[in-house]
Amino acid sequence: MSKVLGFEEVSKHNTPDSCWVILYNNVYDVTSFLSSHPGGVKAILQLAGQDATQEYDPIHPPGTLETSLPASAKLGSIDQRTLPEVEKSPMDDGSAGSARPFDLEECLNLDDIEAAATKKISRKAWAYYYSAGDDLISKALNTSVYRKILLRPRVFVDCTNCDSSTSLLGHKINVPFFVSPAAMARLGHPDGEHGIAKACAQYGVAQLISNNASMTPEVITKDAKEDQVFGWQMYVQVERAKSEKYLERIHKLPNIKFIVLTLDAPVAGKREDDERMKNVGSQLAIRDVVTDSGGDADAGKKKKGKQGGTSVAEMLFAGTASDLTWKTTLPWLAKHTKLPIVLKGVQTHEDAYLASLYAPQIQAVILSNHGGRALDTAPPSIHTLLEIRKYCPDVFGRIDVWVDGGVRRGTDVVKALCLGAKAVGLGRPALFGLGAGGQEGVEKVFKILKEETKTCMRLLGVEKTSELGIKHVNTRAVEQDIYDGPGGLDELRPRLWQAKAKL
Amino acid sequence: MSKVLGFEEVSKHNTPDSCWVILYNNVYDVTSFLSSHPGGVKAILQLAGQDATQEYDPIHPPGTLETSLPASAKLGSIDQRTLPEVEKSPMDDGSAGSARPFDLEECLNLDDIEAAATKKISRKAWAYYYSAGDDLISKALNTSVYRKILLRPRVFVDCTNCDSSTSLLGHKINVPFFVSPAAMARLGHPDGEHGIAKACAQYGVAQLISNNASMTPEVITKDAKEDQVFGWQMYVQVERAKSEKYLERIHKLPNIKFIVLTLDAPVAGKREDDERMKNVGSQLAIRDVVTDSGGDADAGKKKKGKQGGTSVAEMLFAGTASDLTWKTTLPWLAKHTKLPIVLKGVQTHEDAYLASLYAPQIQAVILSNHGGRALDTAPPSIHTLLEIRKYCPDVFGRIDVWVDGGVRRGTDVVKALCLGAKAVGLGRPALFGLGAGGQEGVEKVFKILKEETKTCMRLLGVEKTSELGIKHVNTRAVEQDIYDGPGGLDELRPRLWQAKAKL
Amino acid sequence: MSKVLGFEEVSKHNTPDSCWVILYNNVYDVTSFLSSHPGGVKAILQLAGQDATQEYDPIHPPGTLETSLPASAKLGSIDQRTLPEVEKSPMDDGSAGSARPFDLEECLNLDDIEAAATKKISRKAWAYYYSAGDDLISKALNTSVYRKILLRPRVFVDCTNCDSSTSLLGHKINVPFFVSPAAMARLGHPDGEHGIAKACAQYGVAQLISNNASMTPEVITKDAKEDQVFGWQMYVQVERAKSEKYLERIHKLPNIKFIVLTLDAPVAGKREDDERMKNVGSQLAIRDVVTDSGGDADAGKKKKGKQGGTSVAEMLFAGTASDLTWKTTLPWLAKHTKLPIVLKGVQTHEDAYLASLYAPQIQAVILSNHGGRALDTAPPSIHTLLEIRKYCPDVFGRIDVWVDGGVRRGTDVVKALCLGAKAVGLGRPALFGLGAGGQEGVEKVFKILKEETKTCMRLLGVEKTSELGIKHVNTRAVEQDIYDGPGGLDELRPRLWQAKAKL
Amino acid sequence: MSKVLGFEEVSKHNTPDSCWVILYNNVYDVTSFLSSHPGGVKAILQLAGQDATQEYDPIHPPGTLETSLPASAKLGSIDQRTLPEVEKSPMDDGSAGSARPFDLEECLNLDDIEAAATKKISRKAWAYYYSAGDDLISKALNTSVYRKILLRPRVFVDCTNCDSSTSLLGHKINVPFFVSPAAMARLGHPDGEHGIAKACAQYGVAQLISNNASMTPEVITKDAKEDQVFGWQMYVQVERAKSEKYLERIHKLPNIKFIVLTLDAPVAGKREDDERMKNVGSQLAIRDVVTDSGGDADAGKKKKGKQGGTSVAEMLFAGTASDLTWKTTLPWLAKHTKLPIVLKGVQTHEDAYLASLYAPQIQAVILSNHGGRALDTAPPSIHTLLEIRKYCPDVFGRIDVWVDGGVRRGTDVVKALCLGAKAVGLGRPALFGLGAGGQEGVEKVFKILKEETKTCMRLLGVEKTSELGIKHVNTRAVEQDIYDGPGGLDELRPRLWQAKAKL
Repeated sequence: MSKVLGFEEVSKHNTPDSCWVILYNNVYDVTSFLSSHPGGVKAILQLAGQDATQEYDPIHPPGTLETSLPASAKLGSIDQRTLPEVEKSPMDDGSAGSARPFDLEECLNLDDIEAAATKKISRKAWAYYYSAGDDLISKALNTSVYRKILLRPRVFVDCTNCDSSTSLLGHKINVPFFVSPAAMARLGHPDGEHGIAKACAQYGVAQLISNNASMTPEVITKDAKEDQVFGWQMYVQVERAKSEKYLERIHKLPNIKFIVLTLDAPVAGKREDDERMKNVGSQLAIRDVVTDSGGDADAGKKKKGKQGGTSVAEMLFAGTASDLTWKTTLPWLAKHTKLPIVLKGVQTHEDAYLASLYAPQIQAVILSNHGGRALDTAPPSIHTLLEIRKYCPDVFGRIDVWVDGGVRRGTDVVKALCLGAKAVGLGRPALFGLGAGGQEGVEKVFKILKEETKTCMRLLGVEKTSELGIKHVNTRAVEQDIYDGPGGLDELRPRLWQAKAKL
Repeated sequence: MSKVLGFEEVSKHNTPDSCWVILYNNVYDVTSFLSSHPGGVKAILQLAGQDATQEYDPIHPPGTLETSLPASAKLGSIDQRTLPEVEKSPMDDGSAGSARPFDLEECLNLDDIEAAATKKISRKAWAYYYSAGDDLISKALNTSVYRKILLRPRVFVDCTNCDSSTSLLGHKINVPFFVSPAAMARLGHPDGEHGIAKACAQYGVAQLISNNASMTPEVITKDAKEDQVFGWQMYVQVERAKSEKYLERIHKLPNIKFIVLTLDAPVAGKREDDERMKNVGSQLAIRDVVTDSGGDADAGKKKKGKQGGTSVAEMLFAGTASDLTWKTTLPWLAKHTKLPIVLKGVQTHEDAYLASLYAPQIQAVILSNHGGRALDTAPPSIHTLLEIRKYCPDVFGRIDVWVDGGVRRGTDVVKALCLGAKAVGLGRPALFGLGAGGQEGVEKVFKILKEETKTCMRLLGVEKTSELGIKHVNTRAVEQDIYDGPGGLDELRPRLWQAKAKL
Repeated sequence: MSKVLGFEEVSKHNTPDSCWVILYNNVYDVTSFLSSHPGGVKAILQLAGQDATQEYDPIHPPGTLETSLPASAKLGSIDQRTLPEVEKSPMDDGSAGSARPFDLEECLNLDDIEAAATKKISRKAWAYYYSAGDDLISKALNTSVYRKILLRPRVFVDCTNCDSSTSLLGHKINVPFFVSPAAMARLGHPDGEHGIAKACAQYGVAQLISNNASMTPEVITKDAKEDQVFGWQMYVQVERAKSEKYLERIHKLPNIKFIVLTLDAPVAGKREDDERMKNVGSQLAIRDVVTDSGGDADAGKKKKGKQGGTSVAEMLFAGTASDLTWKTTLPWLAKHTKLPIVLKGVQTHEDAYLASLYAPQIQAVILSNHGGRALDTAPPSIHTLLEIRKYCPDVFGRIDVWVDGGVRRGTDVVKALCLGAKAVGLGRPALFGLGAGGQEGVEKVFKILKEETKTCMRLLGVEKTSELGIKHVNTRAVEQDIYDGPGGLDELRPRLWQAKAKL
Repeated sequence: MSKVLGFEEVSKHNTPDSCWVILYNNVYDVTSFLSSHPGGVKAILQLAGQDATQEYDPIHPPGTLETSLPASAKLGSIDQRTLPEVEKSPMDDGSAGSARPFDLEECLNLDDIEAAATKKISRKAWAYYYSAGDDLISKALNTSVYRKILLRPRVFVDCTNCDSSTSLLGHKINVPFFVSPAAMARLGHPDGEHGIAKACAQYGVAQLISNNASMTPEVITKDAKEDQVFGWQMYVQVERAKSEKYLERIHKLPNIKFIVLTLDAPVAGKREDDERMKNVGSQLAIRDVVTDSGGDADAGKKKKGKQGGTSVAEMLFAGTASDLTWKTTLPWLAKHTKLPIVLKGVQTHEDAYLASLYAPQIQAVILSNHGGRALDTAPPSIHTLLEIRKYCPDVFGRIDVWVDGGVRRGTDVVKALCLGAKAVGLGRPALFGLGAGGQEGVEKVFKILKEETKTCMRLLGVEKTSELGIKHVNTRAVEQDIYDGPGGLDELRPRLWQAKAKL
């Protein structure tokens, strides 16, 4: 029978010499494990002598504990009456969205959903989902740029029928949006990524699985319908063998139809809302590991990985390669997967053009500034879309172009499609939907957005997504702001043309 | 003698098997009527066992009750002392327009009138009048776009005389504005559309009667002056015979001079302020009847009308055709009316051009985004007016162009005229005028706007509306934003030219 | 000995049959005077039986009482202890400028002065000074347009010396600004226009005397220095003989060097802040006398003056001609004055051009939208200045161009000069200066603005006002908004060229 | 032994005839010194009979007292118990930055640092640091203009390595920013400019020493590392001999590598926040000494220096020459120093172009509007940088271009570099860093900005500062606003070309 320990006793073991932690109501002695923790000593020591479940759970896939610790490490169970009271942590201070609804049923739009989730989830989860780089300028632009585009409804057109379906790389989806890869879904609700998958099944939505998902791809896809479409987001590891192994694992999951190679966060942006939370928040903040302490005349020479790991983020991201290039990474990938590649994080027409030259290995790009979480004042994807239209529309003929960031209305979805996007990704809306009501909350998000999308198509006088075109939108207010500097293409075109001959 | 019933008794009959409702202090058993209710079962069941007068009254023309129910359905009268207390419902929470006046006499402008009405009418009525699509972007643009246009007053000109009159399709009106078709006037004040008509008579204003008016056209026009001008707004019914019958009825009313075919709301926009009210509000919300519940893999295949009716809106709009087209609808209309046709809801220069090719059957278009109530981010009518000026000014030579949406000042009226509009429609201002003081409130609206219009004309150095021209306005700040994408006309011109030869 | 009357007795005489008023602590029976009151019966009846001093005083020049009423009308003096308590009326509700200073000494800029005055003067005076047309858009633009112009300081230039003087029609003034004609100075402070004149003497500032000044031109100019410069603002009367007589009177005042013919308010704008005050406010509101009451099918036919006078404004403005024209008014003026004419209220380059063709009778124009008090959304004078630069810069060679409206900083003064203005008018700042501290307050305004102007010139590297030029300002943000519609000049140039031959 | 005096006694000596002041707890009789005080009589008399330490200390370098007063002037020490209580003066009213952190450790960005400093330093110091000219328009523009520039991240690029170093006139610095010359560092923290220097040593940052530093250059540089880079900011004195003497002193300090000639504040701007403080604030306000009191018909003729000195500012600035010119000042400087000259305060492309013609004596310009403290509505340095790029990019080939003003983020630093700036100056951030935590606070500023800069470079896909270019930024929203008036260069180019032949 398991021994029952009191919190006072446990809390004394809070040093490298004797380090206990409480996880899922059990007490573990992790002293000998400290040095081999992938995320570093410090991440554990911050929680030494305490209940670490809330921090541990959402970022460690199930089974981690069993495979990492010997059975002997489990000392017993905690006497729960002895635990200090903890912050119950709904954001109930009234500062956010007070006029917005609390209940899922009353939510009429995606802003309502965010407000409802904000009231329900922990401050930590909120900070992680809400935060973006620096001053949140790109995050705000992502949404406001859609508001500046006007629609051009055509009238006296039969709009009885309306079909919102489209296809992703040949796979039919019922609605022209998909779930962008977003980490840590279980922070917001225990349904996690699997709950999102089940909602996707209901609405025929595609889902891109984050490399840092809080559930394994196997679990996420286990209840998938036969025709359900998934993509798998890959962060290439420094040790390429690890990535190769993971690919093999992915190849066994038949619903995963393509690989999403994420390029827009080779190092992490500065997400201050998240950092201010100081615990999960800062641990998840994927900051530049080359941190300067005191003078740093030689800081530039420090190598990654040499410093003691200081955060859970390093556990997740340690080993993520920052040396990917067109020339080296794509050939390597070609050797290890036959799945089509989607490049996520393209933010200039130059890179979209480059990507298109690598078709058919690359079959799509996702224009994305990482939800404004990477580089602040990076352009919204709508800018990049307009750049491509202006400088190299031939890209649309070679690969698919998807976008994400800032979509909150069906009119936003339709506008992106009018400008040439094949589909639109949802990041925070899916997470906030999950936070607001688990799987059901995600379904509500899909339902709202699908209805809005179809109402918009009908009012434009359009029956099928393929009919949406540039004549349905007035983008003039945005076009005044897009890049018109020296054309990277003048450099790129001839060089690449030669190298690759004609496609 | 009528039986007197207590509320407790009545309230038990709230199921499809026994459904009673209180209307005008009488109790009716509507169980057997449920299935034949044009608006569906659900609309009644929501009010089963309750006093439904407040919901019923403003949307059912007088006489509906008598013709729908057998005498035996009337069970008796309600004992009023047993009724639960109801919200008296003026918006007296101080949240809106607190610094604005309450009394009609103190109102100096149309914003004052709206504020006064907001304080007087029920929240339900307010929500219905105030609401617009999604985020109210088009609604706000409708007004702000006028503020960005500057006037160019000419001086040293004799401005002793000033004549604000103009004509609509040959009929003289004293002021260059008209009342746009707006539903449910009795929600705001018992004077209803008839009160508006009497105010119009006083000021020589034309009135367009809504298809969904809360009074019949016969009642509305019964006290009309001989030269008073009305138009009748038509929503074509799926069962065309019904529409044909209604046209016959209209032809008997000599003051109705033209038919206004509304095109900008073939399906309803998403009006969340209205939906949040949950009762009249949501019932009137004319939402897409193809609503998705749970998974909807096959939602696209559902047919309109197959679902159980869920709202009063469906009672009003059920049967409204969404399959109108240039080719089929106009010839059909030509068979059934000799009245000139005005197309309401044109939002692009392409459609204005198309309409002009159908003169003389079509004699005018109303540029309108339905007060921002249909598709959010649809262009304000001033944009469309500027598009026509730029791409196909010949339209002005073939048909009249009217506009509506956002007009709140005499300067707005004058600006629209300078840009080529023949007259300007008032939607919410008339309804809010009614709410603020019945017929007298509407007269106040007309008085204010007429005085402002004439002051503006005088200060521009203009004596007659026909003198107003492009040289009196500086629209540069707006022109930077109007559509300059690929011209729909390049496609349209030759095709239609051939088809119709020269006009 | 004068009889002493109690308020209770007086207050009973409040009808057309027996109408008493208290003025300057005396009681008058004005019953027989009612019908001959230039401002109409109603204006007096509103105050019948009451103390009318506060309303009467600031708008009737001294001596009015004596010449209008027979000695017998004076019934006695009021027993002051019987008077009802009156609102002492400083705006002390904290709503305006609470963080701003109260004392003149603490005022650092013109906004401070306005705040200080706002706290000191009566609400009535504040409303009259502060108010502008409709939604105050032009008033706000007048100031904000200056903020959008950037300065271009040149460095490495000797700026030891700085001379801010310039000249108006050949008369030297020490600073490049003047006091615009503004009515009712005594509303704000008993020093009135004479106090402004004495402040002008101290700082070498020119002053334009309002036709509606609360003091006579003789009083205003009585202490003028020999070289002090005044202009006299003229509102031409319907009875031209009255105007001719007034001109003769002006000709006797040697400091008055030119006539300012005001063109921008032939009818009054709608100043709602003022109207809401209901007393002096609404009385001074110079509204269109053709007011519609109830139905007005024939309102257009009503003649001015036929209606019962309803406001003091009519007393002041009744008889003001609205039929001035280039062709009739200028020749008439030429017969009756040899003084140069300055046209105030030009708002388009077309009218500036026209004016320039009438040199040398016309020697200057004042670009002005009447402080935003006439037509709302009329252009700020900076717009008109830029229009002239763009379309007919030859105007600058024939006449002087002055501007007013919105100037609050020395940088504003300098910017106007850089764009070609010879001098800049101050309206509200002079009145608020007076309100904040009488003559001393006006001096403070001049001192602040002069210092700011000189600091600006020095930092631009400029020694004399004549050196200021287009290269010192970046107006690009404003130029994007100025008129570029069809050129009125194309019409005007040949026609006038012929008519007047070459100048 | 020193006599102990009571405050009551001291406070009586507050006239020119007997003037005592308390400094560092000692009482001095300064009566005989009054007339020879460089800052004028008035500056002392304002504090006569009082404790002047707080005002005296931060603006008089150590040793001033001993060299100015004879030993006999010291009368004794003050009995501290008799002193009146003084405002302890942290800005703890909660009005500023209440949600921001108080502790240095919690500061995540430069706005946090400013907020923390605002809470710690005296109101006087805050007002001096925070204040800017007139309405703070240029100050706000300095920052907002960076926010309008978008970045263009390139992806699929190896960003493992990142080097933020660059060079100033051949001297390597570890980061592409430097400390702009800012006066009165000891107002904020006793570490003063020497503390800044020590922080600079830690991070390899260059420091420009203000002419009005609160410490001598010798003290500031005393602990400098061998390769540490300083510039010395020079305000040329009317008595050139004084400047020449100072230059000799500077030449003895080997770490001072160049002279910074400040041109953007020949007379002081109007800094009202500072003036409102009334004491140190107004004393430091370097206002135009030609102040008008009452009438000023002849104010223009007053000579500088003739008036009685009224403020400490005059002590600092009295004698500063306002007659510098290209033709006279540069040749004189060439005679007295061989150090390269950097011109600070260039605000037009014309002056940048002129400066470039004087290479190699002039080796760099600093585009600066003096932190918005001189002329309000002067252009932000980013405007001037874009002007140079557009009209005379050859400037970049002849001299270095540095900028300052408004930088708050690493992205701002990178944007300036992309546009051609070699380095970026920090004014307020260094002072607020000092205020927030002395030397440690300044280090925190450097650490934050360096990390942000490197994160930005990595996310742009750039390894070295020299690779940053125009293709990495989208400046279109700013370019719409830059000067496009008549080109000063058309005048300048030929004239100077001749004069100087080819460079």
